[in-house]
Amino acid sequence: MSSYQDPQWQQRMAVRIDFNYMLDRMIGPERGLRFDELKALQPRIQEVHREIVDKTGKGNEFLGFLDLPYQDEAELARVQEVADRLASMSDIHVVLGIGGSYLGSRAILEALFSPYRNELPREARNNRPRLYFEGNNMDADAMSALLDLLPTERPTSPSRDVTVNVISKSGGTVETAVAFRVLRQRMAQIYGPDAASRIVATTDASKGTLKALANQEGYDTFVIPDNVGGRFSVLTPVGLLPAAIAGVDIRELIAGARFMAERCKGDDLLTNPAYLYASLMHLSYVAGRDVSLMAAWAKGLEFVGFWYDQLCAESVGKANGGRVPLTSVNTRDLHARGQQVQEGPFNTVVTNLFVSEFQRTLKVQPDEGDLDGLNYLAGWGLAEMQACAMEGTRFAYAKAGRPSVNVHIPAVNAFTLGQLFYLFEVATLAEGYLQNINPLDQPGVEEYKKFMFGNLGRPDMAKYRAEFEARPERLDEMIV
Amino acid sequence: MSSYQDPQWQQRMAVRIDFNYMLDRMIGPERGLRFDELKALQPRIQEVHREIVDKTGKGNEFLGFLDLPYQDEAELARVQEVADRLASMSDIHVVLGIGGSYLGSRAILEALFSPYRNELPREARNNRPRLYFEGNNMDADAMSALLDLLPTERPTSPSRDVTVNVISKSGGTVETAVAFRVLRQRMAQIYGPDAASRIVATTDASKGTLKALANQEGYDTFVIPDNVGGRFSVLTPVGLLPAAIAGVDIRELIAGARFMAERCKGDDLLTNPAYLYASLMHLSYVAGRDVSLMAAWAKGLEFVGFWYDQLCAESVGKANGGRVPLTSVNTRDLHARGQQVQEGPFNTVVTNLFVSEFQRTLKVQPDEGDLDGLNYLAGWGLAEMQACAMEGTRFAYAKAGRPSVNVHIPAVNAFTLGQLFYLFEVATLAEGYLQNINPLDQPGVEEYKKFMFGNLGRPDMAKYRAEFEARPERLDEMIV
Repeated sequence: MSSYQDPQWQQRMAVRIDFNYMLDRMIGPERGLRFDELKALQPRIQEVHREIVDKTGKGNEFLGFLDLPYQDEAELARVQEVADRLASMSDIHVVLGIGGSYLGSRAILEALFSPYRNELPREARNNRPRLYFEGNNMDADAMSALLDLLPTERPTSPSRDVTVNVISKSGGTVETAVAFRVLRQRMAQIYGPDAASRIVATTDASKGTLKALANQEGYDTFVIPDNVGGRFSVLTPVGLLPAAIAGVDIRELIAGARFMAERCKGDDLLTNPAYLYASLMHLSYVAGRDVSLMAAWAKGLEFVGFWYDQLCAESVGKANGGRVPLTSVNTRDLHARGQQVQEGPFNTVVTNLFVSEFQRTLKVQPDEGDLDGLNYLAGWGLAEMQACAMEGTRFAYAKAGRPSVNVHIPAVNAFTLGQLFYLFEVATLAEGYLQNINPLDQPGVEEYKKFMFGNLGRPDMAKYRAEFEARPERLDEMIV
Repeated sequence: MSSYQDPQWQQRMAVRIDFNYMLDRMIGPERGLRFDELKALQPRIQEVHREIVDKTGKGNEFLGFLDLPYQDEAELARVQEVADRLASMSDIHVVLGIGGSYLGSRAILEALFSPYRNELPREARNNRPRLYFEGNNMDADAMSALLDLLPTERPTSPSRDVTVNVISKSGGTVETAVAFRVLRQRMAQIYGPDAASRIVATTDASKGTLKALANQEGYDTFVIPDNVGGRFSVLTPVGLLPAAIAGVDIRELIAGARFMAERCKGDDLLTNPAYLYASLMHLSYVAGRDVSLMAAWAKGLEFVGFWYDQLCAESVGKANGGRVPLTSVNTRDLHARGQQVQEGPFNTVVTNLFVSEFQRTLKVQPDEGDLDGLNYLAGWGLAEMQACAMEGTRFAYAKAGRPSVNVHIPAVNAFTLGQLFYLFEVATLAEGYLQNINPLDQPGVEEYKKFMFGNLGRPDMAKYRAEFEARPERLDEMIV
């Protein structure tokens, strides 16, 4: 039995939400939430809960993510099998995808591995390839820099062998599609007809240009289910395949999500962590805070913040409302944003992603002569110092009437990451329903594309080009 | 004559501000700025200008950054000389610093070099070392990951040789000081008494523990001037030395800043780019937008955004006011934040950092069979596609009543970076004065430190520990 299957270990690894520092007891009556206000939301939460379990709420055709913690073992086994094959045949693995098609897997990798993973020798990477994320912009320099790392002909050393995973529901997302065309041509140059065995596509089950292309070329494919939106897809092959290629135990990740799913089954906002978090964020927003800062107290969790930024911004940012999420790393960014949270506008609520135990221990050693004056810290571990900084920070914020909620993470591992993903997904869904919007669509994302494709000359977008060209003239006196 | 000394080239490389899309002509009367409103700010700008040039405004003891574009060539020559020495004797260079002590140099490196620079062979790095940034957190995993890259004994291959630059005004910043103690002990282990010749300190001219330590150990030192605050220090050795070690032409950087400084000498907000930007941001904030999004349309400029986040947040985030800055990369984050900017609250103003010409050219090639349906784009360069996306995006925003201002960057190089740094520094100063606050202090940054140091047992902070310990009890029922 792996440790993540041990119920006692699971309990020790439970992610907890501490909302003491949201309340008036801690931050004063003017800015603090009253406990009875929170409890008064319970009837609304029960309605929201019914909308979710009965699948009667807005966007209910995209609730498939709720069931992913209980997904079929056969699908996981196939992800693992293809991942092992790709890992064994390459030391450079390129993941192409944008938005929800890369943020989740990147968050997993950044959390679980060294920030310098790609610089380590293969044996220090558990014999798994380096991973690169591209196809998420139209940036000639960044894409060219990746091409520089790739061979131009069949490599003689296996450390230069390449595999590619292209992730796109339709295949029509231009950033990913263009990057894939460039890479497909490079792969053909390197491997000729063998290129197809080194490319895998994660896409629609049957529709779209990428699926058709994959069929024609004979790529392995994985399915993005129709009922799972991009930003909710980290527990599908979209997130799982890159994680498995890097050597993450994807069953542990799913077990963590399942552990959280079990805790999120009830309709009581004081015991269901997702509803609790949704309620806190909703009440904070209603009270006038239109910004929320997720402060990761571990560098490796910064990308969990970026993943959440998308999840939150695309889900609640509509109908001219929704709080604006942003991410920081502490204590690092206390020296960048701390001043503003402490003394800026009362428009921000803070979520601390706080980690108790790091993978590595590093203690301050005594120093002869104490030239730097730090001997008073000798024997302290960095993790314990971090805890002092976090406690000091939220106390200082509280004194200034600034609320914060702690998401307490016993240690960063695949099991706790699985919990975090599921927790925030359900919380976001519930928050959207509390705000009477559809948290599962993103109509605004299409707006810029109409004019971009119009300008790019896509024939079916000609009318948008015409609209663009009829805009008021830009005046030179407005350019300085 | 280098190209950056050629006046014609300089004019071609001038950074321009286009505010057409801030105005009611483009975004409608309800959300748009009227041109006469902007012009009406001119008398206030003249007052602000007097406060700046006469050095009578708040925080005037920290206006030294204004003169950095005109700094002594002798200082630059010394930075270059030490940089060349360190570069020649190491292939791993570690920069320790937090906040303003690393964001500027990191922004320069990310902008000018491959994102995979540290993975390239030395000859592809112009024979300059890999650079690593640490000492900016208390993160045992991240710091341990860096230590993994360093040797434990004198290396036999020069590709493992290490040098260190520690950057801290006082030496008392605990994140940097602790990391430096750890690294100093490792350097002593590797190099014994020779370690001192491989360490350089950027710190106060005479005061503080780091200066005393450097004197005692015999490190080379560089001075952070008393009249330059951390977030305004990129054009001092704080930013210049790491840049020079990586092979950046620091004289080109300074020439760019000087070019912008000349354009920022007048008091007319319609010709001084810094005053114009300050006025636009100020009026946007006064109109109720408490969030500002800097969208970098090139991945390499993301860290210019992070550098600006600190500059802005610490400067204007006080007196319970100030807009909250955040950074995105486009088109990448149009798939993460675009929905919210398009249809979320009317609380956000966008600044596009738009680059016309990339260092590399990458075109969409035709493909036989056109399996991905992209042949209609064949012949398009990625940079031109990016321009279509930017134009489409700001037009779509404008249609929805969302203002944006473009900072137009002809190409990313040291000269334009120098312009950007100086532009935003002066704009931030002016914006603070427009808001009647002191943009040059950061009293709130000290708040959390009191309680952190109290909790860490620093003797002089005992009273804060007592205050912390007298806080209301945390209740377990508030932990779920």
